[in-house]
Amino acid sequence: MLQLTLSADSPTPLVDQIVTAVRTRIDDRILRPGARLPPIRQFAEHHGVSRFTVVEAYDRLVAVGYLQSRRGSGFYVASRAQPARAIGGADAIERAIDASWLMREMANGDPERILAGSGSLPAAWLDEAGVLRALRGLTRRADVRPVSYGSAQGYAPLRAQLQVRLAEIGIGATPEQIVLTYGVHQALDIVCRYFLKPGDCVLVDDPGYWNLFGNLRLYGVALMGVPRTPDGPDTAALEAILAEHQPRLFFTHSVLHNPTACNLSPAVAFRVLQLAEKHDFMIVEDDIYGDLAPDAATRLAGLDQLNRVIYTSSFSKTISGNLRVGFLACRPDLAHLFTDVKIVSMMSSAELAEQLVHQLLTDGHYRKLLDRLKGRLAESTGQALRMLERVGLKPEPEPRGGPFVWARVPGLTDTAELARRATRDNILLAPGNVFRPQNQPSGFLRLNVGFCAEPRLERFLAAAVADET
Amino acid sequence: MLQLTLSADSPTPLVDQIVTAVRTRIDDRILRPGARLPPIRQFAEHHGVSRFTVVEAYDRLVAVGYLQSRRGSGFYVASRAQPARAIGGADAIERAIDASWLMREMANGDPERILAGSGSLPAAWLDEAGVLRALRGLTRRADVRPVSYGSAQGYAPLRAQLQVRLAEIGIGATPEQIVLTYGVHQALDIVCRYFLKPGDCVLVDDPGYWNLFGNLRLYGVALMGVPRTPDGPDTAALEAILAEHQPRLFFTHSVLHNPTACNLSPAVAFRVLQLAEKHDFMIVEDDIYGDLAPDAATRLAGLDQLNRVIYTSSFSKTISGNLRVGFLACRPDLAHLFTDVKIVSMMSSAELAEQLVHQLLTDGHYRKLLDRLKGRLAESTGQALRMLERVGLKPEPEPRGGPFVWARVPGLTDTAELARRATRDNILLAPGNVFRPQNQPSGFLRLNVGFCAEPRLERFLAAAVADET
Repeated sequence: MLQLTLSADSPTPLVDQIVTAVRTRIDDRILRPGARLPPIRQFAEHHGVSRFTVVEAYDRLVAVGYLQSRRGSGFYVASRAQPARAIGGADAIERAIDASWLMREMANGDPERILAGSGSLPAAWLDEAGVLRALRGLTRRADVRPVSYGSAQGYAPLRAQLQVRLAEIGIGATPEQIVLTYGVHQALDIVCRYFLKPGDCVLVDDPGYWNLFGNLRLYGVALMGVPRTPDGPDTAALEAILAEHQPRLFFTHSVLHNPTACNLSPAVAFRVLQLAEKHDFMIVEDDIYGDLAPDAATRLAGLDQLNRVIYTSSFSKTISGNLRVGFLACRPDLAHLFTDVKIVSMMSSAELAEQLVHQLLTDGHYRKLLDRLKGRLAESTGQALRMLERVGLKPEPEPRGGPFVWARVPGLTDTAELARRATRDNILLAPGNVFRPQNQPSGFLRLNVGFCAEPRLERFLAAAVADET
Repeated sequence: MLQLTLSADSPTPLVDQIVTAVRTRIDDRILRPGARLPPIRQFAEHHGVSRFTVVEAYDRLVAVGYLQSRRGSGFYVASRAQPARAIGGADAIERAIDASWLMREMANGDPERILAGSGSLPAAWLDEAGVLRALRGLTRRADVRPVSYGSAQGYAPLRAQLQVRLAEIGIGATPEQIVLTYGVHQALDIVCRYFLKPGDCVLVDDPGYWNLFGNLRLYGVALMGVPRTPDGPDTAALEAILAEHQPRLFFTHSVLHNPTACNLSPAVAFRVLQLAEKHDFMIVEDDIYGDLAPDAATRLAGLDQLNRVIYTSSFSKTISGNLRVGFLACRPDLAHLFTDVKIVSMMSSAELAEQLVHQLLTDGHYRKLLDRLKGRLAESTGQALRMLERVGLKPEPEPRGGPFVWARVPGLTDTAELARRATRDNILLAPGNVFRPQNQPSGFLRLNVGFCAEPRLERFLAAAVADET
């Protein structure tokens, strides 16, 4: 066993202590190329730390080229120990801001807090009264069975309605190809449980959806970030990765990408699908912001028709994050298998919530809501971009719609400390590192235009930019 | 790669085809002791079958002593290939009735169907009107936020109320030690995700809760069944297993055990905890039927006070299976880690459902409901036992309360075919093999007393017993 001294009381997070200690031993040739690292659980038990901590540390060491992960076998010192690529110096390694920090901060219920780092639209924009009215309506319907278990695959009328909605965006799927889930999270988790095992290689957007990264780390897989361009995944970088690795899955956002707010172009979509075919991996396309897109947009599932693409979306950003109603659309054989995974891990659907969403989708409420939301987003985005220009932050790329602006902070290569300072002013900012697969530093912030109108935010950002330049 | 010819069109299930083919090759010494079996995914891809199928086949071969599972490394031909213990002849291997069959059959919505194999109380016994009333009440409350994401750990007032309820059954837990989940299923799944990796050994009740077995199989762990006596787990058998294996977890029901309807005795509880201490494994105690117990009962968590025991329960059997509200109670450090697992895999709670359950628990509704349910169960159990006596089925052991009777069918060593015949008469029976970790044959049926009053069921069972004797 590796002899390390870790201290839970140190201000340096345990992950960083492990990363630094292992790097030093590799740099000092105490750990030689080809040497096997202790298995994650053994390391965790020996040092009295959680497996999460060890997984994250190993994962980061893979990202910087110090370790290699071999499928089904464990972690080894890389044969050519390279200087760190993505992670800079010791100061970068010591940053403490990570995804669970953001999640906990989002849960802070202080009404005075400015939630500029939030992933959701302001609750006041959504139709709370409409949801409550629909809920009251449900309590009077004869076909509502509020005490019985729901079905395994999900409320059939909602699946039939989703067939219609998917057809409108050019995706052909029968109700049998649709599995209702507890939000996009459970959809992604079902796909992971079915496809992945420890040591597998998985592609993700870089930057990309942060909470997915945490889940993938827990599966013990190696995350490879595919850089994001304004037109979608960087296909040259993707090809370079594919020359060396055989990924199982590629998780990606096509429309109103989180966090960069740009859309996939048809040409890039075609190239990504070509590469998926050639290198035999599946694509999981998360379309959670798709209904908010102001214009027609390209989806991988629209080209591929659910052959290599598993499509997922939810109503958490438009109707309610509380109801937890999302879905998967995929090949019929996968829908059957994914339903089995859902049965063994969650038993059945919360049918009441699915009936509520079905009600809102079919009574014309949802279309009106989307029109309103798109109008508010367009207006708020204009205001936010003007505010960012005043304070000197640069949106890159220009947002194509949706709630986010991905903005560079001049003079900063890491916005983590800025976000930490913002919490002291009761402002939640989402620093760029949170959206990177190995939590690498980033000079960007993800701003939610729904929370950018507060003068207090503008003052904070203006002062921050002035400090740095 | 193993050269096998599998046929998806054969009436013999694929799992059985694989089991038979591998057994034959081991019996014929084509596969020799110590030989490594192909990894699960490779086998699945090579033969075009699902990983579920391969996992189940390997798992069964472990159970009958043909294969050994080595932690983190795979499956090997056992060094002393023994004759099958649990699984009898070729006919037993060919049975097709398994857990997913039962789940699909339960979902059959035909109102004429007699659900004698159901795991839930009749919906008509539950308080549908009360749930709908509480739901309408929620829509008028100012603290209900129906469009916002819920919290990560779960609605705090419900966790505070659960502290009170747990104290009443002698379990001390602060709200910080309680994590709300989407039913017991998600609770069990979170524990699995945190603790287990492929190849681990896990103890389960034999017979025990079937749907858990499916989930554990998907995690690629080896299931070891601990035989169940009327006083709880058979501690001598448990000791024998522990002499050879190092399990991570033991999943067990203490109160109104599913399917045998008996309770854990204090002496057995103490011995099980002693063994957990000595052999360093954690216990996951599922108390989903506990609130229906007519008398005070012993729980492992009541003795151990959540040191080695993780306690889980839900309101799916009493308030509603639709709302999906359950919980975990555990050590504070585990509660923190389990909340992290919940965040990455499901994001947050469906707070509306948690607020509804909190309302019903605090307005006095729940206690009255439990009193009514216990009264109906006592009455129905008496009627069901008299019916079983008339038709010649023998309850073993005598049920201690709750919805189930575990009844032996004289003259049968496998009730799977009987259950299959029953579906043709529109009767759902739960055959004993479904509740066994490796789906081994069983001469028992699990009957739900809430569905036993139909004369058509009595006629079917009487004819079945007459056929066999």
